[in-house]
Amino acid sequence: MAKKVLVLPGDGIGQEITAEAVKVLNWAIQNGADITLEEGLIGGTAYDATGTPLPAETITQAKAAQAVLLGAVGGTKWEPLDISVRPEKGLLGIRKALDLYCNLRPAAVYPQLADASTLKKEVVAGIDIMVVRELSSGIYFGQPRGVEDLGDGRKKGFNTLVYTTDEIERIARKAFEAARKRSNRVCSVDKANVLESTELWREVVSDLHKREYADVELSHMYVDNAAMQLIRNPRQFDVIVTTNMFGDILSDAASMLTGSIGMLPSASLGDQFALYEPIHGSAPDIAGKGIANPLATILSVAMMLRYSLELPQLADGVEAAVVTVLDQGLRTADIMQPGMTQVGTAQMGDAVLAAL
Amino acid sequence: MAKKVLVLPGDGIGQEITAEAVKVLNWAIQNGADITLEEGLIGGTAYDATGTPLPAETITQAKAAQAVLLGAVGGTKWEPLDISVRPEKGLLGIRKALDLYCNLRPAAVYPQLADASTLKKEVVAGIDIMVVRELSSGIYFGQPRGVEDLGDGRKKGFNTLVYTTDEIERIARKAFEAARKRSNRVCSVDKANVLESTELWREVVSDLHKREYADVELSHMYVDNAAMQLIRNPRQFDVIVTTNMFGDILSDAASMLTGSIGMLPSASLGDQFALYEPIHGSAPDIAGKGIANPLATILSVAMMLRYSLELPQLADGVEAAVVTVLDQGLRTADIMQPGMTQVGTAQMGDAVLAAL
Ligand SMILES: CC(C)[C@H](C(=O)O)[C@@H](O)C(=O)O
Ligand SMILES: CC(C)[C@H](C(=O)O)[C@@H](O)C(=O)O
Repeated sequence: MAKKVLVLPGDGIGQEITAEAVKVLNWAIQNGADITLEEGLIGGTAYDATGTPLPAETITQAKAAQAVLLGAVGGTKWEPLDISVRPEKGLLGIRKALDLYCNLRPAAVYPQLADASTLKKEVVAGIDIMVVRELSSGIYFGQPRGVEDLGDGRKKGFNTLVYTTDEIERIARKAFEAARKRSNRVCSVDKANVLESTELWREVVSDLHKREYADVELSHMYVDNAAMQLIRNPRQFDVIVTTNMFGDILSDAASMLTGSIGMLPSASLGDQFALYEPIHGSAPDIAGKGIANPLATILSVAMMLRYSLELPQLADGVEAAVVTVLDQGLRTADIMQPGMTQVGTAQMGDAVLAAL
Repeated sequence: MAKKVLVLPGDGIGQEITAEAVKVLNWAIQNGADITLEEGLIGGTAYDATGTPLPAETITQAKAAQAVLLGAVGGTKWEPLDISVRPEKGLLGIRKALDLYCNLRPAAVYPQLADASTLKKEVVAGIDIMVVRELSSGIYFGQPRGVEDLGDGRKKGFNTLVYTTDEIERIARKAFEAARKRSNRVCSVDKANVLESTELWREVVSDLHKREYADVELSHMYVDNAAMQLIRNPRQFDVIVTTNMFGDILSDAASMLTGSIGMLPSASLGDQFALYEPIHGSAPDIAGKGIANPLATILSVAMMLRYSLELPQLADGVEAAVVTVLDQGLRTADIMQPGMTQVGTAQMGDAVLAAL
């Protein structure tokens, strides 16, 4: 029976970039991938249509699918909304509903684009970091949370950062496994000198390391130092494993270092389900103009072919096609450089298809 | 009656760098500053001597002083200790005891050192950011916190991020006031799309802005985007105001961008008390070698002269002397560059004295 892939375009440029990624999925089908595509609603678009950023129907669809491809959610249009129905709630909700606890965010440099980095060439060359971000727990989901009226004219806003030992252990395990297939080094990032929850994080990561992964090189770093070291010498990192909140910040910093921010995909994996999305956002300012860069979403399809559909050769093919179009000098506006050929979203997608 | 200044050397290089800063304080006394100096214990050094990283005596001394000068706390030596008696607890404890809620962290480039940045020259030139970090609340201090045994073989670690409207308003006020003396722009950083506590943060900052500071340009940014924008285009920022945890991360990132990390001072201000310290740490690896850079601590004395002792001319003098020694080509190891003259901690301190 054919496996299902659920496409959730979401908001802003999410619509345009997933359209190009779907072309690549159709190519995969023509080349032996036994999948059928389905579409669903999420984010502000879902809110506008149904009153909620994550309709129950979407979760049902996702649970019936082998993998989900997501464009992007959010936009200034929905920012006045209450936090409980914001587009972002749709994304957080699906991560939680599918228990997608492991977010893989590669930050690697495309030599063709390294000039776009604000960092010096010699600092950027060869950056190849994998941020393994815990994605279904931590302060994003901890209870209690909310805003309380203190009755004296003041209000109190609060959130809870919680991690249990089993939650820490399962994400640490993913990081060690990833490291073994890479340069075999894990840097665990916490704030163990201030936060008890991350003191526990450090303890659990260290224990697991001793018990099962002593062959992997493990270091620990405080989050403030990690933010500095990423700028000072990003090449020192191989795998970085960290909490949901720290991972949000550090993975975005790491990707910006590469100069390839419009190019970076991500995978969000659980033990049963998986979701793939570009790391960039919904870019409401350029939505609908046909100029957004579809390559990060297309590369997210490559990750899907590799991790969820067990078609590594097709994945390799997609990644090679992206390199080809870069070598051809094709660039969307966000990565445009002197002497290159500027193309729109659909042209870029078609060029990848042609290179496949 | 003479005002008191309390010097807390702390750990690691804290000892050596405060010794040089004390020379500058003595110069200030000779030049009309009506202060007496006292010394006290904090951090690992205090723990080793008294069993606690923050002796009650230190708080008594600090409350009797006009200003505190702190070196640095912490070190690998004390990392096996329980979080409740770590050197860092001394620093957090004094911030809380003195209600030092406003942490000013300038991140500006010294043109003489700009080459040391990993960022391209044209990106670094002219960076002049003031991070206004909330310092006495947030997840650093929120209750409940701790580690709990769940009774099923698992443990749970937890911390609480809490902000009340009055805490947010007072730090926002400091940011708006600072901006008025600078380029009149404030960027408030939060994660209002995920965390209710920072949704309240955004609301309070916006309300205060509307009521009293409409002349200041205010923008809001999510923390992950802020981490990226600091790398993409740091010059877009004037004043950044943010929470304790986000401020810890972003201020360290901002300072590393400048390439002048060993040069940056900070002020931690409350409504009654004030503490000054370099932003760098205790650098246990080079402690006792006489090679640490004392300039950030000396520049912290300049901030003290300006903000706590109302001696702006002496402050200007110290800052000018630091520029002079840089122009003379003197460099400690951390900022050494080809063609410059490498000097040790005491030599650098003496050179500043000579330039005064
Ligand atoms: C949109 C937002 C809720 C989300 C997050 O903070 O996780 C995004 O920044 C990301 O990193 O995927
Ligand atoms: C030492 C540590 C507790 C401290 C902090 O996190 O506040 C330090 O990183 C700082 O920024 O002053």
